[in-house]
Amino acid sequence: MKGLFITFEGNDGSGKSSVIETIKKELIDRGYDVIYSREPGGSRIAEKIRDVILDVNNVGMDPKTESLLYAASRREHIVKTILPALNEGKIVLCDRYLDSSLAYQGFARGIGMDKVYDMNLYATESLLPDLTLLICVSPEIGMNRIKQNQRGSLDRLEIEKMDFHKKVYNGYLEVQKKFPNRIVIVNGEASKEQVKKEALDIVINFIYKQVQ
Amino acid sequence: MKGLFITFEGNDGSGKSSVIETIKKELIDRGYDVIYSREPGGSRIAEKIRDVILDVNNVGMDPKTESLLYAASRREHIVKTILPALNEGKIVLCDRYLDSSLAYQGFARGIGMDKVYDMNLYATESLLPDLTLLICVSPEIGMNRIKQNQRGSLDRLEIEKMDFHKKVYNGYLEVQKKFPNRIVIVNGEASKEQVKKEALDIVINFIYKQVQ
Repeated sequence: MKGLFITFEGNDGSGKSSVIETIKKELIDRGYDVIYSREPGGSRIAEKIRDVILDVNNVGMDPKTESLLYAASRREHIVKTILPALNEGKIVLCDRYLDSSLAYQGFARGIGMDKVYDMNLYATESLLPDLTLLICVSPEIGMNRIKQNQRGSLDRLEIEKMDFHKKVYNGYLEVQKKFPNRIVIVNGEASKEQVKKEALDIVINFIYKQVQ
Repeated sequence: MKGLFITFEGNDGSGKSSVIETIKKELIDRGYDVIYSREPGGSRIAEKIRDVILDVNNVGMDPKTESLLYAASRREHIVKTILPALNEGKIVLCDRYLDSSLAYQGFARGIGMDKVYDMNLYATESLLPDLTLLICVSPEIGMNRIKQNQRGSLDRLEIEKMDFHKKVYNGYLEVQKKFPNRIVIVNGEASKEQVKKEALDIVINFIYKQVQ
C-alpha cells in the first residue's frame, strides 16, 4: 500500500502548525502510521540549506537564488524523508511544499509561477501532494498573530513588509486556481476550534475516500 | 563597452588556479580591468552555499540537490558579481562555471547533461561565457597532483573515488563537443610554463579579435 502525502499551506500566521498538530494526534489515535515534516528542511542536509534561506543576515538574496535553495532543500527532503515514508505506506503531513514556492517566489517575488513550477519539476520529478489544505487568513490578521505570539525572533521571510505578505496571500489564491482539485481552502479566520475541526474533517473524508 | 566573461574548466588537479593567476597578472600589466572569481562562491551568500556544497559531512547528498545548490550559488554569483563587472566593461576570469555542472552533475553523477543544462537556464538566464579554456589532464595525473600539493584537507568532491574523476574527465570532453566554438582545450599535461603560455596566447588572441 502506498502512503498519502498531505501538505498544509498558508501565509505566515495562518495557524498551520497547530492544525497539523491536531490532525497528527487524531490520526495516530485512530491507528494510522503518520509522520510530520516541514519545509524548508525535513532532513539533515535540507536543514542546513534551511539555515542559509532563513538567516536574517542574508537579506538581499536574489529571488531566483531563493527559489533554487528551496528547490534544493525540497529535493533532499523528498529523497531522504518523504518518499521512504510513502513507500512504507505512511501518511506524510508536511508543513509547506511546492505551493509555497509558487506563492512566495513565483507570485510575490515576481519570478512568475510557471517558471518556478517548471524549475521545480526538475527537483520534485512531478511528486505532487495527494491533498493540500490552504489555510487562508488575511495578511493583516496573519502578521498580527505572528507579532503577538512571537516564538523567538522572526526569520528572513517573516520580516518582509506587509505589501509582500499581501502578495503571498493573493499568490496562494492563484495557486489554488491552478490546482483546484488538489487544494482545498480552509477559512483560517474562524475560531481555532472551528478551523481545526474543518481541517480534520477534510483530511478524514479524504482518507476514507482512498480506502473505498 | 561590455566586458568579457572568460571561464576556466578542468578536472581536479588540472592546474587551473595557477593558469588563471598568470593570465590575471599579465592582463593587468597590459592595462586591462580584470576581476578574478570562482565557483561555487564568489559573493557573500554564494560563499555560504559553497560551505554546504563542499562540507565533507554532507556525503550522501542527492545529485539533484547538489546541482540545485550549485545553480543557486551560480545565480547569486551572476547577479552580485559577474553582471555588475561585465556592465562596467571589465574582464571577468572565473574558475569554474556552468560547464562544471554539466561534467560533474550532468555526466559523472548521471543526471544527464541536458537536464542539468535546462535547469541552469533558469539560474543563468542564458548567460554563457564568451570564451572557456578547458585544461585537460588525465584524472590519474590530476589526483596525484592533488595528493602531492595538498593545500589543506580535501573537500567533498575531491574525496570522490577515481572512477568518479574519470567520469568527470570524459564528461568535460562531451561538454566540449556540445560547445565547440566557445570551449578551447588546453593540454594540461605539458610543462607548467607551456600550459601557462598556451592559455595566455589563447586569451590574448581572443581579446584582440573582440577589439577588431
